[in-house]
Amino acid sequence: MALELVSENKSFGGWHKQYRHFSRVLDCTMQFAIYLPPAAMLGEKVPVLYWLSGLTCTDENFMQKAGAQRLAAELGIAIVAPDTSPRGEGIPDDPDQAYDLGLGAGFYVNATMAPWCDHYRMYDYVVAELPALVEAHFPVSQHRSVAGHSMGGHGALVAALRNPQRYASVSAFSPISNPCNAPWGQKAFTAYLGDDREAWQSYDASVLMAKPQGLVAALVDQGLADSFLARELHPEALLAAAKDSGYPLTLRQHEGYDHSYYFIASFIEEHLRFHAGHLQKEA
Amino acid sequence: MALELVSENKSFGGWHKQYRHFSRVLDCTMQFAIYLPPAAMLGEKVPVLYWLSGLTCTDENFMQKAGAQRLAAELGIAIVAPDTSPRGEGIPDDPDQAYDLGLGAGFYVNATMAPWCDHYRMYDYVVAELPALVEAHFPVSQHRSVAGHSMGGHGALVAALRNPQRYASVSAFSPISNPCNAPWGQKAFTAYLGDDREAWQSYDASVLMAKPQGLVAALVDQGLADSFLARELHPEALLAAAKDSGYPLTLRQHEGYDHSYYFIASFIEEHLRFHAGHLQKEA
Repeated sequence: MALELVSENKSFGGWHKQYRHFSRVLDCTMQFAIYLPPAAMLGEKVPVLYWLSGLTCTDENFMQKAGAQRLAAELGIAIVAPDTSPRGEGIPDDPDQAYDLGLGAGFYVNATMAPWCDHYRMYDYVVAELPALVEAHFPVSQHRSVAGHSMGGHGALVAALRNPQRYASVSAFSPISNPCNAPWGQKAFTAYLGDDREAWQSYDASVLMAKPQGLVAALVDQGLADSFLARELHPEALLAAAKDSGYPLTLRQHEGYDHSYYFIASFIEEHLRFHAGHLQKEA
Repeated sequence: MALELVSENKSFGGWHKQYRHFSRVLDCTMQFAIYLPPAAMLGEKVPVLYWLSGLTCTDENFMQKAGAQRLAAELGIAIVAPDTSPRGEGIPDDPDQAYDLGLGAGFYVNATMAPWCDHYRMYDYVVAELPALVEAHFPVSQHRSVAGHSMGGHGALVAALRNPQRYASVSAFSPISNPCNAPWGQKAFTAYLGDDREAWQSYDASVLMAKPQGLVAALVDQGLADSFLARELHPEALLAAAKDSGYPLTLRQHEGYDHSYYFIASFIEEHLRFHAGHLQKEA
């Protein structure tokens, strides 16, 4: 699993770097970004926050727009941002090139249906292959947290709920909290997983949180001026599941904030401090 | 001068907004962005930092990538980011569509040569027309500072050096400090101003700083891993001019940092605190 450096920029005394590597899970070449805080450059093994982005994004959106590096540098946390789907020659895309299926829209599931199933295995990629690669090549510990936005908020919650032993904490901005009951989720799950709704449930955070396999502390922020809130996001389903099962979920609602990175940037400091607290407890 | 709201996003308790308006100076419709801190939403008249972007940028780059809103909110400073050239139907562009001439490359001069002279008057736009518009329509004071990056660092320094009474302070990241002696500057000045090098000098920060009309405190940050440093930027010319004239310039050089927004984001807090200090002295 060789890594090819694509770019590097010094940032808050640490380094933002982009790498390409061949993913066996996705059977294609993938790019990801990593922010290494100053502590990591001094040989210290730092914990890692995995950031899963939303529809249409690549590894770049979060690194350029969230303003997370300042706090990551201060707190001594690395951040890894993968792409949102397999890409490249031979990777299938939606025939209509819709933004919510195919390229840029992997939905963090392991597809079982043709033509997707050969490459669209983003769940295994972000939960297992990418962390193994990162832990083999960078000065990082095995203490991990996971966070994301929208489709990536869904991905982060599902990753933590299905693998409580692997993550110290999980957070999300504006997650697709109940994809089984939302148009984006239904479209993607039908394509990637087929019509059997049983199969969908293992990728639905609200279903999983109702019967948790373990308790990973969860923080969710939702803007109340988010134009996708009523139709696609359903945080009320997540909240109801947490209440039923006694899950440690903090859901905060923010007047006036929308679905954009301006919202994420406004509260990313609190997410990083939340993760740092839980990562320190583990360490 | 009517303003048309294009978009708005809540950000750090304040608002990022984009507006369109007809510019008489540029004879075309222009878009700009403004960040209004929470204090401005409460009716307080806040000072304004004008941010001038570099080649190829629009009003969006700084607002999305610099991470400036957090401090602007805390310090109670509005930020205005104009576009980098006139745009739209009938606006001339470089026939070769080069990134360093024409659209996205106005160089903050008043062009005197055809075909540019009817629209490419970014100096008058950013120094006079845009501040008048902003001060007429938003809860801001007439206390102004100006900052920029690369071509916009050149623009900011020239604006302050030629109008010391209009600005409390000026700062720049990686400015084109001596455009008369740099390929980007020579190409743009030849096109916009003609072959008469006398005319170029009133848009050259190093020439202006050697014989200042007044003293506006200046802060310049330069990355030492900036790939444009040796050929295009010439901070040493600016430093020599400041030494000759006793100009209050602080030039800082930063090991390992490049020409990107990762550099800007790393030090924008110090620029905002620098401007806040000078704007408070004025108020």
